[in-house]
Amino acid sequence: MILNPSFTVDPWCIRATSFDLNLLAQTESVFALSNGHIGWRGNLDEGEPSGLPGSYLNGVWEQRRLPYAEAGYGYPESGQTVINVTDGKLIRLLIDDEPFDIRYGELHTHEQVLDLRAGVLSRSVDWTSPAGRRIRVTSVRLVSLVQRAVAAIAYDVEVLDGPARVVVQSELVANEQMPPTDDNDPRASSPLDSPLQSEAHSSHAAWAELLHCTRGSQLRIGCAMDHVVTGPAVQQDVASYPDLARVTVTADLSPGQPLHLVKFVGYGWSSTRSLPGVRAQVAGALTAATGWDGLLAEQRDYLDDFWDRADVEVEGDAEIQQAVRFAMFHVLQAGARAEGKAIPAKGLTGPGYNGHTFWDTETFVLPVLTYTSPDAAAHALRWRHATLPAALDRAAHLGLRGAAFPWRTIAGEECSSYWPAGTAAFHIAADIADAVVRYVRVTGDTEFERTVGVELLVQTARLWHSLGHHDDTGRFRIDGVTGPDEYSAIADNNVYTNLMAQQNLQAAADTTHRYPERARDLDVDDEETAAWRDAAHGMYVPYDDEQGVHPQAEGFLEHQSWDFAATDAGNYPLLLHFPYFDLYRRKVTKQADLVLAMYLRGDAFTTEQKARNFDYYEAITVRDSSLSACIQSVIAAEVGHLGLAHDYLGEAALMDLDNLEHNTRDGLHIASLAGTWIALVGGLGGMRHHDDGALVFGPRLPEGITRLAFTLFLRGQRLYVEVTQGSARYSLTDGAPMDVVHHGHPAQVIAGQPLQLPIPHPTPRPTPTQPAGRAPVHRRLRRR
Amino acid sequence: MILNPSFTVDPWCIRATSFDLNLLAQTESVFALSNGHIGWRGNLDEGEPSGLPGSYLNGVWEQRRLPYAEAGYGYPESGQTVINVTDGKLIRLLIDDEPFDIRYGELHTHEQVLDLRAGVLSRSVDWTSPAGRRIRVTSVRLVSLVQRAVAAIAYDVEVLDGPARVVVQSELVANEQMPPTDDNDPRASSPLDSPLQSEAHSSHAAWAELLHCTRGSQLRIGCAMDHVVTGPAVQQDVASYPDLARVTVTADLSPGQPLHLVKFVGYGWSSTRSLPGVRAQVAGALTAATGWDGLLAEQRDYLDDFWDRADVEVEGDAEIQQAVRFAMFHVLQAGARAEGKAIPAKGLTGPGYNGHTFWDTETFVLPVLTYTSPDAAAHALRWRHATLPAALDRAAHLGLRGAAFPWRTIAGEECSSYWPAGTAAFHIAADIADAVVRYVRVTGDTEFERTVGVELLVQTARLWHSLGHHDDTGRFRIDGVTGPDEYSAIADNNVYTNLMAQQNLQAAADTTHRYPERARDLDVDDEETAAWRDAAHGMYVPYDDEQGVHPQAEGFLEHQSWDFAATDAGNYPLLLHFPYFDLYRRKVTKQADLVLAMYLRGDAFTTEQKARNFDYYEAITVRDSSLSACIQSVIAAEVGHLGLAHDYLGEAALMDLDNLEHNTRDGLHIASLAGTWIALVGGLGGMRHHDDGALVFGPRLPEGITRLAFTLFLRGQRLYVEVTQGSARYSLTDGAPMDVVHHGHPAQVIAGQPLQLPIPHPTPRPTPTQPAGRAPVHRRLRRR
Repeated sequence: MILNPSFTVDPWCIRATSFDLNLLAQTESVFALSNGHIGWRGNLDEGEPSGLPGSYLNGVWEQRRLPYAEAGYGYPESGQTVINVTDGKLIRLLIDDEPFDIRYGELHTHEQVLDLRAGVLSRSVDWTSPAGRRIRVTSVRLVSLVQRAVAAIAYDVEVLDGPARVVVQSELVANEQMPPTDDNDPRASSPLDSPLQSEAHSSHAAWAELLHCTRGSQLRIGCAMDHVVTGPAVQQDVASYPDLARVTVTADLSPGQPLHLVKFVGYGWSSTRSLPGVRAQVAGALTAATGWDGLLAEQRDYLDDFWDRADVEVEGDAEIQQAVRFAMFHVLQAGARAEGKAIPAKGLTGPGYNGHTFWDTETFVLPVLTYTSPDAAAHALRWRHATLPAALDRAAHLGLRGAAFPWRTIAGEECSSYWPAGTAAFHIAADIADAVVRYVRVTGDTEFERTVGVELLVQTARLWHSLGHHDDTGRFRIDGVTGPDEYSAIADNNVYTNLMAQQNLQAAADTTHRYPERARDLDVDDEETAAWRDAAHGMYVPYDDEQGVHPQAEGFLEHQSWDFAATDAGNYPLLLHFPYFDLYRRKVTKQADLVLAMYLRGDAFTTEQKARNFDYYEAITVRDSSLSACIQSVIAAEVGHLGLAHDYLGEAALMDLDNLEHNTRDGLHIASLAGTWIALVGGLGGMRHHDDGALVFGPRLPEGITRLAFTLFLRGQRLYVEVTQGSARYSLTDGAPMDVVHHGHPAQVIAGQPLQLPIPHPTPRPTPTQPAGRAPVHRRLRRR
Repeated sequence: MILNPSFTVDPWCIRATSFDLNLLAQTESVFALSNGHIGWRGNLDEGEPSGLPGSYLNGVWEQRRLPYAEAGYGYPESGQTVINVTDGKLIRLLIDDEPFDIRYGELHTHEQVLDLRAGVLSRSVDWTSPAGRRIRVTSVRLVSLVQRAVAAIAYDVEVLDGPARVVVQSELVANEQMPPTDDNDPRASSPLDSPLQSEAHSSHAAWAELLHCTRGSQLRIGCAMDHVVTGPAVQQDVASYPDLARVTVTADLSPGQPLHLVKFVGYGWSSTRSLPGVRAQVAGALTAATGWDGLLAEQRDYLDDFWDRADVEVEGDAEIQQAVRFAMFHVLQAGARAEGKAIPAKGLTGPGYNGHTFWDTETFVLPVLTYTSPDAAAHALRWRHATLPAALDRAAHLGLRGAAFPWRTIAGEECSSYWPAGTAAFHIAADIADAVVRYVRVTGDTEFERTVGVELLVQTARLWHSLGHHDDTGRFRIDGVTGPDEYSAIADNNVYTNLMAQQNLQAAADTTHRYPERARDLDVDDEETAAWRDAAHGMYVPYDDEQGVHPQAEGFLEHQSWDFAATDAGNYPLLLHFPYFDLYRRKVTKQADLVLAMYLRGDAFTTEQKARNFDYYEAITVRDSSLSACIQSVIAAEVGHLGLAHDYLGEAALMDLDNLEHNTRDGLHIASLAGTWIALVGGLGGMRHHDDGALVFGPRLPEGITRLAFTLFLRGQRLYVEVTQGSARYSLTDGAPMDVVHHGHPAQVIAGQPLQLPIPHPTPRPTPTQPAGRAPVHRRLRRR
């Protein structure tokens, strides 16, 4: 693990107070700015050195052939991979003809600050050039959350020790040269060489534009820049080429006479609009930009509103306080303005997983957005709905009914080339259904339910019904599928999958009943809904009476244990050091699977089962997946292991700030960041919402946390929950009284009358153990 | 199914009496000549038209990158693929400047005959050129079974209707242009473009040579030709180029004055020897060639000896008589002189499966060779033994002990890129052990056992011991592996695998006990052999008491049935029309798996179990594998379904003559051909050999076969078995009396005193059914 020692602990910002080339790529991901439409990694203004240059537009991808040494029916032939679009961030600088490059000369101070309330990334550098010229460069960068197509940079340069001629080169660069990547890590990206073909370029005054089209996917991309320069500028020049546009400002500076430059960048893209159409779109965006001060003010207003809804207050553990705000900020950035596009696993912070969206968007990210920014959740589900034609085709091609949503995709087509951990992971259908049910339950958005929800539920229920079958004892079995745990595959009756499918089938039957007209449109009749209910009712959930635990899937408990004692620390993640065949046939799990089932389908387990199952799976779960710790935190809290819950919360929260998976360079783990909220609200807050009845809470804090407070929106009402060591306080701003359940006891919260309830002591239980060397870092031992 | 109507039924030859361009590629495979070292497809002498040009040298391959869209630990990065080496078969002909090409002009007669006793392919053509010149071309081709490096062609051309000038061009061509192949059929080959790099070429008089080296695998290949010309030749010319050598003979022919040309071709290759070394080797082979008449005579002597040992006589079904001889001839050709190299799945008859060798060599081909040509069986097992270093490395890389032999390979390294049906099919280890045990049991070859057998048994036993584990009830489980059935994968406790592993472990313990010195060399101690015996003793063999059948693997019986009624005939083979995930999770089997276990480990099943299991699996086995019918024939015969046994025998026997799998173009199915012998000797002859005791027979003929006779060699003794409808007759040529078991009754055969025993009537049982549309063709309904 490489800790970034330059990050300071601060409640409302992430501050790096020094510069380390080895940590650059990670830092670029942490400092990425995005509005869900445009993503800019935190690359240095001057472009070099860089860890991984990255500018992304949500939904812009290129085709990539998926090769197979041995072909098979149903294998996708072509994948989609996110591309690094035209880089609009670049502002290069020369001091008396010497490039400003912090690898040379002397770096006195280097500070970068991501301000979570202002929504800007600031940078301040004090540097002496190899020729002895000392300068200060400061820049402030934003990707507008309000103006979706606009980003901007305020760039100041000042000479400190005497006059110098400076040249500022503000550029747009397409087809940037990319560093080589590790071919053997399936989690990394597969960069494409020069994915952009020039269609047009032009420039005049301080303005320039580049227009490109991708070769295979035929997406047209425009990027333009404009500038406002103040200070003792002596000369301005502009030029454009197919892959480069440059505005050059030359100035003779003296100490105390800084040069100020504001760069406005507009992006636009389309799969259908003409070249003039995209040019006009980009130019229009830039023209409408409200000036630097306007952009800054709008950004802060937008975020003030967000934090008012979504802030989670943590007292007693300053790192967690900072980390949850960092997490919420990036979850917002990933989903805020995705509008009609997916929320990728890395957001728009890096090219990891080729920019694909997986099940974790629905299962980890959307719950957070649903309770805090429901519009963004609705947009994400509308995107899924828009991909239904591809999912219906895919199911038909696989010989199934309904919709087979892709395991990984950008535009809706299956991009997984390894079917045992891709196509076979059908649970994504139920995860989408779960997100639909939750969104409707929380928001009461019947328009969404009617236009989007019903169809998603129907087509996923059809999938399950065609995928499973009744055995001769009447049990409904789902054989040969892969659950969440990626160290198991192609097993019969995965408990998570079966329970989630059960809920999916039941929800589809219930919902079509409420929307008979939509049911008719979708050719759903009473026979079909009855069949769904039958399947749900008969759903087989294997359980081992003798051991008193649920097997993750049938046969799992009989498998050989993994030899954890013989597994060196350097052999994690296991997938890079052991073959799948061996992982799949052993009792070792990469991530919460059965434990996740106990969270999302907590209603299907007794308290005793939860405690026993948790202990059992704790001992074999290695957490090689970033999706694990947050869920383990939730169930640890529920069964009473509060210290462990705190530790796992820490792991989820610090996944990227501490680079725990060693691949933050490729982008942030948006789902794990969302999991920070889940661990706090679902874990320490004990919030559950299994049916349309009351919100259920079981709040309880670990020793190291003295106060936790969060806000939830339920059907427009605002519930504020504050938890301390001894009690919890529920406050409703206005509206009708709200039913809640507190530690098993029903209660009613009335607007303006906060309800304070005591927290009972947990049942003491022996602390479970983790595989050798895989215990989480204890929060109380962590010192920065 | 495309039947080749031009094949006539003949006891000792395959005769094609007409020419059909659509059947050309299949015919080339059927008429392939090989000695196990050199393979020449039955391409027309003049090279064009051709289905698939093919000249192969056993062990000559090129590297091929195995691409993965998603990489994984332990995936082989590089594969091996057989290449089409320098073509020495070519003899082009011009008549008055017009190329002899049977696609043009008028073809009066075209006959090809593969003579199974002479070991030659003859061809006779009567043709009138577009310009009106009528000629007769006859050629006789052989690949010497005696002189391993030599092939030869006697080529005659005669003008029939008046004088003409003919030009005969005898060529060597490297890097022949290949037809495109179907990328989506995993059973086909992946041809490499121009795999041969020229190193040298030369020519003088009627002699020429080409020397090449492969790019990646760095194998040096030499090919040379020499000629004897008789007749009214007026001029001879010779030339050589990097990829071409040509001897040209020009003659003015008149009717009655044919031109005779004999072409001798020598091949040599080496991974280590120098260019001069390989040149000398090839030249030496040609010089030593015993002239055309000498080669012909040697060939016939060699085959007389083979047929004396190996012939199987069938009366009452002439097609089967022909087919079993065709089968035995090709099994001989594949294995005769492989000497230190593998016996590939296609022999040297085509590039199918990239020239790889699989488990079926040990399980299907070696049993036949062991009882009829034991030296060839020993060579094949010595080749396996020579690949032990790669198998030990592979096991270590996979985290296992012992040897993990490759699922598919040419030189010993794993070339399977799809691990669920490759690496996971660990049963190959037990199949090799089974072949070792059988070879030693049959031959008593203790020198082989000591130098080769012990080590193969030890290293495979080690694999099993590290692959399985004891569960808490003491059962030894082997989880997450793939058995023979390729429509299932990654299952726990595959019955075939577990029973074969059990035999492997037991044999290793027994054999090391007999060779304590070898055991010491291999670091085998008493603890280790005790552990093997323990594992064998505790081996878990799942059985379903309620249904009274063995599941193919744990959980199999609970899976959903395949909907055979809804599966069109055009959707077979299923693997080209349905995804693996769906095949794997259903009750549908591609091939005998549990049924194969009942043959090879017949001692582990009761008669009643065999009958019930057979019925059960008959109903779900689609025989998309060519390895299935012969085994189904064996067990059908054992449980009393004699008509069905006859039908499956027909399917196995006619696999290539009738092109039943539609891919004979890529090469013959050597294992299915060997399976013809298995179906006759093991099926209708009922021969079993489960322990070191007596040979067991249970002979019984179906209605359509009146007599079956075959010879077996057991520890040097020759046993001749003749079966008729009512009785069986056992004759021993000389030596000590031999114990046999006839239909359960022990008996002794004394040399010179044939023993005739009556055959009891079978227990009548209802005929089992096959999946809709997948019943075998009834022998009694087949009319040609």
